[in-house]
Amino acid sequence: MGPDDVAAAADRIVGHVRRTPLLTLEGGALGVPGRLALKLDLLQPTGSFKVRGATSLLAGARVPPAGVVAASGGNFGLAVAWAARALGHRATIVVPDSSPASKRDPLAALGAEVEVVPGVYADALDRADHLVATTGALRAHAYDDPLVVAGQGTAAAEVLEDLGTVDTVVVAVGGGGLLAGTCAALRGRGRRVVAVETDGCPTLRVALDAGEPVDTEVGGLAVSALGARRLGDHAWAVRDEIHVALTVPDEAVADAQARLWGACRLRAEPAGATALAALTSGAYVPDPGETVAIWVCGAN
Amino acid sequence: MGPDDVAAAADRIVGHVRRTPLLTLEGGALGVPGRLALKLDLLQPTGSFKVRGATSLLAGARVPPAGVVAASGGNFGLAVAWAARALGHRATIVVPDSSPASKRDPLAALGAEVEVVPGVYADALDRADHLVATTGALRAHAYDDPLVVAGQGTAAAEVLEDLGTVDTVVVAVGGGGLLAGTCAALRGRGRRVVAVETDGCPTLRVALDAGEPVDTEVGGLAVSALGARRLGDHAWAVRDEIHVALTVPDEAVADAQARLWGACRLRAEPAGATALAALTSGAYVPDPGETVAIWVCGAN
Repeated sequence: MGPDDVAAAADRIVGHVRRTPLLTLEGGALGVPGRLALKLDLLQPTGSFKVRGATSLLAGARVPPAGVVAASGGNFGLAVAWAARALGHRATIVVPDSSPASKRDPLAALGAEVEVVPGVYADALDRADHLVATTGALRAHAYDDPLVVAGQGTAAAEVLEDLGTVDTVVVAVGGGGLLAGTCAALRGRGRRVVAVETDGCPTLRVALDAGEPVDTEVGGLAVSALGARRLGDHAWAVRDEIHVALTVPDEAVADAQARLWGACRLRAEPAGATALAALTSGAYVPDPGETVAIWVCGAN
Repeated sequence: MGPDDVAAAADRIVGHVRRTPLLTLEGGALGVPGRLALKLDLLQPTGSFKVRGATSLLAGARVPPAGVVAASGGNFGLAVAWAARALGHRATIVVPDSSPASKRDPLAALGAEVEVVPGVYADALDRADHLVATTGALRAHAYDDPLVVAGQGTAAAEVLEDLGTVDTVVVAVGGGGLLAGTCAALRGRGRRVVAVETDGCPTLRVALDAGEPVDTEVGGLAVSALGARRLGDHAWAVRDEIHVALTVPDEAVADAQARLWGACRLRAEPAGATALAALTSGAYVPDPGETVAIWVCGAN
């Protein structure tokens, strides 16, 4: 996968997904050196970047009459429901009964069939697999599908267009779909990619330490959005393109959320402020003249 | 005042004030016909467009050693304090003791001297006038100063650059500084300007009905930001350039705030959602092909 796949995804999603703005900040705005610009993907429909990948998938795959099935009580489920409605497909979102009802109502409002199963996320996954096997529906994977990954990379392609001088991009990592797509979009362009996880959701860190993706326990402030248990294969495949992989504590994420509101009146969710937290906590220190684009990727 | 004055203001504020993004929405995103784009001036430092005018003033006027004085417990006071710090001037913000302490702390955090006077806003104005008379400080008027008005117009100039096809711009009106600046920026360009007030803060409506600016009672949801008691002379001077002047009820403003969060994850204050409320309430109905830029001008 590379820039051509991302460009093809961009063609698929145009007119459906927003071309989100890049907010260039005055010096020192967030108490951080460097020339900072925020990629405001929290302004996407459903409040996260995930509509890029979901729309890329549904516009690029053959979607059978049974529609698409995803297991998710979070941002990806919302994104699949949104994309299915936008493109005229059926969507079934399987959520565990351990997830709050407040997460289900928006799915139903988007016209998705919401199936609640007893248990936890793994049980929802099992049920989704069963539905795919028995109905022929398309399975939507949140981060380890090439069409999804290419869609997530479209944000980086937009940043390159808007800010040709960008030296470094900073993205949060859960399962690594955004990371893999970003690396694909930037391949051969000489930009640095900084990958940031919370201490509680260290799938990339654990994979790098183990020499391969392995299951890990996840928890903490950002777990609802970054809490994949295992890094995806697409993210693992780009590990040598990462300039540096960092982890930040939950306190740094909360502080970054507060600074985003104080300086920019943006309400980011913890995962949406995790990339910024690498800079505001000092885990990544740009050079004074370095131009850094930071993904603010979700608000839910 | 015209486009040249606005261009001069843009030169004065560049590098201090943000060039805020324009968010173009997919069809139907807010339940409104037309092609909508949101001018996100709520993302400015201090959370409102007022830093444009305040910075234009302090960078364009001769600021004496005594600095600048403003009477305001709201967005303009914050903006003056912010601009004074950015440009290295003293600022004194006079606030009535009827305003909450939570409005004063941010002023002090920006390095302004905060003077609290007994009484209401009129008492703060009297004290500010006294300070100007006795210290020689510059008086900062929130909306009826040509340098302030030219600064507020810079947002419209940016929209013209970003969206050359815009047919209509929609702005909220309090004292009318943003309205006057917008009309100045767009003069001779053939665009429609839609002016929107809340029912509770109808200074423009009252002036048009009376044939001149007159004092009026103000109240309701948006009073803290739109609650000027009398339309400014600069706004009155552009009355013939307004395509239509509308008022909307508070309920429409609250609904527009909710839609901004639901569809765009933007937290606007009532005044910041007032322009949009004209469209979401049906008070202004664009043609299906009409491109409309809507100011989302504050978040406090």
